[in-house]
Amino acid sequence: MYELLRGMHMVEASSFVACPTAAMYLAQMGADVIRVDQIGGGPDFHRWPKARNGQSYYWEGLNKGKRSVALDLSRAEGRELLLELATAPGERAGIFLTNFPVNGFLSWERLSARRPDLVLTRVMGQADGGPALDYTVASALGIPFMTGPESLGDAPVNAVLPAWDLLTGAYAAFATMAALHHRRETGQGQEVRIPLADVGIATVANLGMLAEALRSGDRKRYGNEVFGAFGRDFVTADGQRIMLMAITPKQWRGLVRVLDMAADVAGIETSRGTSFAQDEAERFLHRDALYPLVEARVAQRRLAELAPALDAEGCCWGPYRRMEEAARDPALVGGNPLFEAIRHPSGETYPAPGAMATLPAASRIGVRPAPVLGAHSEEVLTELLGLGSGQFSALVDRKLVGRPA
Amino acid sequence: MYELLRGMHMVEASSFVACPTAAMYLAQMGADVIRVDQIGGGPDFHRWPKARNGQSYYWEGLNKGKRSVALDLSRAEGRELLLELATAPGERAGIFLTNFPVNGFLSWERLSARRPDLVLTRVMGQADGGPALDYTVASALGIPFMTGPESLGDAPVNAVLPAWDLLTGAYAAFATMAALHHRRETGQGQEVRIPLADVGIATVANLGMLAEALRSGDRKRYGNEVFGAFGRDFVTADGQRIMLMAITPKQWRGLVRVLDMAADVAGIETSRGTSFAQDEAERFLHRDALYPLVEARVAQRRLAELAPALDAEGCCWGPYRRMEEAARDPALVGGNPLFEAIRHPSGETYPAPGAMATLPAASRIGVRPAPVLGAHSEEVLTELLGLGSGQFSALVDRKLVGRPA
Repeated sequence: MYELLRGMHMVEASSFVACPTAAMYLAQMGADVIRVDQIGGGPDFHRWPKARNGQSYYWEGLNKGKRSVALDLSRAEGRELLLELATAPGERAGIFLTNFPVNGFLSWERLSARRPDLVLTRVMGQADGGPALDYTVASALGIPFMTGPESLGDAPVNAVLPAWDLLTGAYAAFATMAALHHRRETGQGQEVRIPLADVGIATVANLGMLAEALRSGDRKRYGNEVFGAFGRDFVTADGQRIMLMAITPKQWRGLVRVLDMAADVAGIETSRGTSFAQDEAERFLHRDALYPLVEARVAQRRLAELAPALDAEGCCWGPYRRMEEAARDPALVGGNPLFEAIRHPSGETYPAPGAMATLPAASRIGVRPAPVLGAHSEEVLTELLGLGSGQFSALVDRKLVGRPA
Repeated sequence: MYELLRGMHMVEASSFVACPTAAMYLAQMGADVIRVDQIGGGPDFHRWPKARNGQSYYWEGLNKGKRSVALDLSRAEGRELLLELATAPGERAGIFLTNFPVNGFLSWERLSARRPDLVLTRVMGQADGGPALDYTVASALGIPFMTGPESLGDAPVNAVLPAWDLLTGAYAAFATMAALHHRRETGQGQEVRIPLADVGIATVANLGMLAEALRSGDRKRYGNEVFGAFGRDFVTADGQRIMLMAITPKQWRGLVRVLDMAADVAGIETSRGTSFAQDEAERFLHRDALYPLVEARVAQRRLAELAPALDAEGCCWGPYRRMEEAARDPALVGGNPLFEAIRHPSGETYPAPGAMATLPAASRIGVRPAPVLGAHSEEVLTELLGLGSGQFSALVDRKLVGRPA
């Protein structure tokens, strides 16, 4: 983690991917983030994948560097405690992230009545408050019909990575900071709503795909070919599959050189009346000629010989690897300064990353694990709400507040 | 757009997806963002998809709300102008986003020599400065082998959505704001590096997948089934395909009720010795029994009958749609307050979104289109560098600065 946001205090009550990642990004930049969960864990506390003892790798992955408070949110008094925490005083506090229902007990009306200058970031499904998850946002946008080989016909292919959740989470972290900037300038707090469904359709539009669909209908399936560019998977002489791209003139020149195919490429350019040097779209339009050529050349070379040649020319390529191989790659994990092998709440020790950005001028402060559920209930309730230890014990006795056994 | 960042001035010199979206998110929250391109356009200026006249929908989608300056960056004097713009004075300026090479003319050393308190956000491929694109990051992480139906065997399936680019872009916008916060507190600027490859592996780890791979090897292909939860595509009596999920207890209860399958579910629970009410993972573990049941029930109902019943119970579902259908859906685009039909640089008028967040307390200010390339060269160079109109004309005459014909 880094200390860019040191001194900022935030509260998060949420689950699943988007909102927890937003709060984690903030924590990894130095903010104090208090995650509030239902005693025993919220709906994401047991999510797969799981550690040997049944604890969730997923939960401990998405809550690194936060403090944990456990409350019984099924009772009015527990909800009251959350309202108090979210709106606790302090110039650098009053920042709350949630994916709870827009009109429930964590509505803007309820919260702002206690702290009008609150910055409230709310991750939602639909803008109208209706449910949506990454997978339903994706299915509604048509991308599953563009994914995978043509041989699949009309069958949709779902993405495995929850891209809409992840994008929403990072955008929510950004929007929180933008709203904080505004509060500092004007004194005004406000609610910032970020519906997954809006992130989905806006992004499709930002990429030019909405205009494309309106103009020329649905894009067809191109399998592993990158639309509008030179890029596809190829297999080397020793059976290694690589992703090979050329989107800039430099990458294309390098590729032509490495594969020693200048004469063949010139022949195609002449017969087709085009040039591939500058315009990646031309490489896509004439892929029927270029892909077989590259395929044959790549198939003649072993990866050990090809890789350094591609690197030397600044070509853009990468191996296809299995995830376990990636996880055991020293360049990616073991020797990557982002990662540190730390002990997690599951009791297991494995490498975990801090902030995804690198600040060359600052030192990374150790990667902090996710908290044990409720581990900070006492310190947070005494700090933020000024409870005495007798008052805290009474809340525990009444099962309104949870702490580790 | 909104005005949360009104008064902030930023400069962007970049191309493709990640860095341009970061700058666009900032612009759509009210920052003044000046995009600097090579005269005639950078490597992304002609990217597909394209409008009828050949202009890029992609470029005009990713540069909305920015001002445009065109310089000849192939000449030292053009590069000098960019250095001056990026480091121009002003308390609310000195913010520069780029994906140019880390050790090139836009290195931290070069830039900070002119403005030590610069906030420099640099989107990179690999952390060591090597090239990487969304597709090579993805292939290196193993996700293509988990995507698509089992019938594909060992063939990888690339994602169509550039998820790593998009996540990197949103995170870069966040990290820029975090660094600005820090500068305001301490007066210190710095470089913030965000390598795509680090975003990729860190995210896989954040989702618990890295620990999973280290513990139990590669996850297999589950087709359209959501790992560890109840969720898959199903087809209705009238042949409509829907994505149907149940990750919370409420969603599962609702689904059981709507499909009138309480007795069958209870039977499975008894014979398997489990309960599906609370734990989504149990629904996944016993999907061999649950999916055929739900499949049969969904196949008996028409979508027009099923949809309102699912909605009434707060179930999470969505249709599979083609992108053109999504683009023409009034709920998603035409009647969505995010969108406005505006005229773009291509000359075409089509709907485009503003900020992906919604601020209920603020009014949306009209969606601003991307600029015509070089449209603001004169105003920006006179404003920021104090050039007189004669000096500006001289730069144009020498083809160091471009402006629209």
